[in-house]
Amino acid sequence: MTYLDHNTYISLALEEARLAAFHNEVPIGAVLVHKETGEIAARHGNRTITQSDPTAHAEILVIRQLCKDLGSQRIPDYNLYVTLEPCTLCAAAISFARIPNLYIGALDKKGGGVYHGAQFFDQPTCHHKIHIEHGFMAQDCSQILKDFFKAKR
Amino acid sequence: MTYLDHNTYISLALEEARLAAFHNEVPIGAVLVHKETGEIAARHGNRTITQSDPTAHAEILVIRQLCKDLGSQRIPDYNLYVTLEPCTLCAAAISFARIPNLYIGALDKKGGGVYHGAQFFDQPTCHHKIHIEHGFMAQDCSQILKDFFKAKR
Repeated sequence: MTYLDHNTYISLALEEARLAAFHNEVPIGAVLVHKETGEIAARHGNRTITQSDPTAHAEILVIRQLCKDLGSQRIPDYNLYVTLEPCTLCAAAISFARIPNLYIGALDKKGGGVYHGAQFFDQPTCHHKIHIEHGFMAQDCSQILKDFFKAKR
Repeated sequence: MTYLDHNTYISLALEEARLAAFHNEVPIGAVLVHKETGEIAARHGNRTITQSDPTAHAEILVIRQLCKDLGSQRIPDYNLYVTLEPCTLCAAAISFARIPNLYIGALDKKGGGVYHGAQFFDQPTCHHKIHIEHGFMAQDCSQILKDFFKAKR
């Protein structure tokens, strides 16, 4: 296999976000990709309501699944793609899992924990800094959330 | 049942911390208690290694278990007792779960996310503030960690 471009993986994360909305969950999706082969190792959308678990965010679900699959609490060979800026909970989990690269779709002023609020990776209590980029298919990643909450009102 | 004093519940959390150390896990324990009846609803120690899950902190495990038991992602009727200041991941999860009161044993300058680093509850991205107290059996809660890491060296 070969590593594809970032937008391709964000598109897959967006598919998971759409599926989450179908389950009446906040449409955010995440995909873990092997940093060399480009293999898609895990993909999930939010499932906090379905699973009765306030921590069942897309990022947490892919991390938990792959860690279980590999029998390790650290996955330094996998890059994370997520449609929305991770919240503080997810930012910390990403760091604990030793994920090296994080690619984000849209930013999240209200609940983000990377560029906003807690800015987890910039804290002295963050002991594993990572490479982060954002803006991949940001318009699509943001629009699906707007549509979801508009329909909810 | 009747609600007991905070040190009693912290003592139970300390038992979970001791059990965690027995499994070679960082000795931190957490207990969820019904805020009116004092019923002990969930108790766990860290299990990140045993479960191959970087998010399997004591706090996350009790929250996940009780939420599953109650079929809800919010548990506003339960107070959380934890031997060490929650990290940023746990602080966010506590807020998302709508836990009203948090009682902490020892503080954690290195990895804490409540009084240190991200100071999650003080951020504008934290949408559910809670009541927090610390210093319950702090010496015991701290010593068990020191002993654990000393033995590891």
